[in-house]
Amino acid sequence: MPVFTAEQLENMGAEIFVAAGAPAEEARLVSKFLVKANLAGHDSHGVIRIVQYVNAIERGDIKLGAEIKVMRETSSSALLNGNWGFGQVVAKRAMEMAIEKATESSVGTVCAFNLYHIGRLADYTAMALEKDMIGIAMANSRKVVAAHGGSERVLSTSPVSYAFPTGKESPFALDIATSVCAEGKVRVKLHKGEKLPDGYIIDRDGNPSNDPEDLYRGGAIMPLGGDSLGYKGFGLALVVEVLSGILSNAGCAYEAGKRGNGVFFQAIDIDSFMPVNEFKRRIDNLIQTAKSSKLRPGFHEILIPGEPELRTERERLEEGIYVPDKTWEEIKSIGTKMRLDLVSFVAIS
Amino acid sequence: MPVFTAEQLENMGAEIFVAAGAPAEEARLVSKFLVKANLAGHDSHGVIRIVQYVNAIERGDIKLGAEIKVMRETSSSALLNGNWGFGQVVAKRAMEMAIEKATESSVGTVCAFNLYHIGRLADYTAMALEKDMIGIAMANSRKVVAAHGGSERVLSTSPVSYAFPTGKESPFALDIATSVCAEGKVRVKLHKGEKLPDGYIIDRDGNPSNDPEDLYRGGAIMPLGGDSLGYKGFGLALVVEVLSGILSNAGCAYEAGKRGNGVFFQAIDIDSFMPVNEFKRRIDNLIQTAKSSKLRPGFHEILIPGEPELRTERERLEEGIYVPDKTWEEIKSIGTKMRLDLVSFVAIS
Repeated sequence: MPVFTAEQLENMGAEIFVAAGAPAEEARLVSKFLVKANLAGHDSHGVIRIVQYVNAIERGDIKLGAEIKVMRETSSSALLNGNWGFGQVVAKRAMEMAIEKATESSVGTVCAFNLYHIGRLADYTAMALEKDMIGIAMANSRKVVAAHGGSERVLSTSPVSYAFPTGKESPFALDIATSVCAEGKVRVKLHKGEKLPDGYIIDRDGNPSNDPEDLYRGGAIMPLGGDSLGYKGFGLALVVEVLSGILSNAGCAYEAGKRGNGVFFQAIDIDSFMPVNEFKRRIDNLIQTAKSSKLRPGFHEILIPGEPELRTERERLEEGIYVPDKTWEEIKSIGTKMRLDLVSFVAIS
Repeated sequence: MPVFTAEQLENMGAEIFVAAGAPAEEARLVSKFLVKANLAGHDSHGVIRIVQYVNAIERGDIKLGAEIKVMRETSSSALLNGNWGFGQVVAKRAMEMAIEKATESSVGTVCAFNLYHIGRLADYTAMALEKDMIGIAMANSRKVVAAHGGSERVLSTSPVSYAFPTGKESPFALDIATSVCAEGKVRVKLHKGEKLPDGYIIDRDGNPSNDPEDLYRGGAIMPLGGDSLGYKGFGLALVVEVLSGILSNAGCAYEAGKRGNGVFFQAIDIDSFMPVNEFKRRIDNLIQTAKSSKLRPGFHEILIPGEPELRTERERLEEGIYVPDKTWEEIKSIGTKMRLDLVSFVAIS
């Protein structure tokens, strides 16, 4: 597996998207978001997507240089039509608007529809932190999760993200699927030929299964909480579906031809409720209290949302990012097709 | 066990609170909220609390006729100091303000601190439905839930509620603890002498336990998700703690002397994003699609958040509300102490 620096991968992605016809600014931005995911350790949302995006451009699923249209707007809210631009471009604009509106009106809420995949939600909620605001994000996509008690796919993995600024502690950044797991986790197990833990998926008849292939044979991922408490995960997933799929105008996960993400973004201006420094002092205290809890047998550390990603980022900024051979071959072959000289990107190890 | 009508119980509670010194309007409102909880089938939040509240009034934990003070305010947000009034009185005012602000500014966000227990969150998010708005609520209280991997109490059960208006379908009303269960559930098992299911609580040393008494011997409730996925429930509980405990100014669950609830309320005006009728048509469709999923073996029906409560309410409006003998004895004895003639409330069966 070749190892590249984050900068190399970002340049590589930008070059490929430009060759595919993207305006330079869009190409750079999308590539930056993909590499951010690699840095955070979420390779399923990283440069592995370059080839998928190029194919989506060719199919017309992504419209290059699409104009983002404001369909509805108030002093504190907006609804954006992304006109099938890159998800990252539309979502970044949506969160920027939420932040602008929160600056004026305490809380800014922006929904968007007609946009391709946006990647990790935490990259958008983190934008609020730069302005000492709270970031909230929800997104829907295609159906893959069952209702509690059901055996059919109804909902998407319905991720939510919440980011809070901190003082001395590293930023709080929750980004989780409200289902038992993201679909990428099942795919990774499938590729490695490994079994899934109990309670992750059901097969097409609704029976519990540990075989990742059963998901792709018409099975479904379970809502968080499993057999007895799955009504909680199901309830939360429905909330995400309504806010990011219905209120956003993007359409529900189960609708035929559902593509891309629907998004619900919010930024909250802390200063409208309390002094930011006081907020940061208190959240530092909460984090320190939680982390210094006496440990349970079998646990070695208490981790706060965002901590594992930050550690991986530090490592990968120093040591570089491994790109699996298969991904690298695919990228090289799309490069050749586009007559790009990717050989100039020499792996650092 | 005597059975009373909802009206009887509401009158009884109001009479007792008035005798304890509460202004008539406050007494009526609090009693109405308690009976609402009984109607919904959540007896732990119902008239069983009358005696607790009277004691809290006597101790000075609840201040009768307290003035609710607006500490900070913008066109879309407010921070309220409840001055230790009845939780229901302060929380109702907070949600009313969120709705008023959403009417003007699309989204209204109101936090409140210094208020006693507010009861069920769904009663407040439901208020938004009357105005065709979305209601969101979070609350913190005293610590009883462990961090993921920790054996000590750090967080409260961190409930969240989301309510959405519907068209033909019954209203969507999610109201769940982000921990494995509410504390009331453990208490019920304790009183019945029953064991808890696996994964609900740990004892004071952090070992899994099925004995409800272990919670009251210094144990803790587990975050939603259990040993492997508890980082999700822990993450969500931290979000609730930050929004309803820190941003609200109410103080964290782990702080010494923590009393009452801190609350974070939001109302979202649907019409700022899409026509309300279109929203209702789509959410009806989502509910119907989820409910008509093929069932998993062992399940008989798919229930939408709020459905079980609505069914119980219909039953209890017709058949009355059972009051356990112990609760009824306690209420009668406090009535005698106050020289009230509760005998006029004749049980319907």
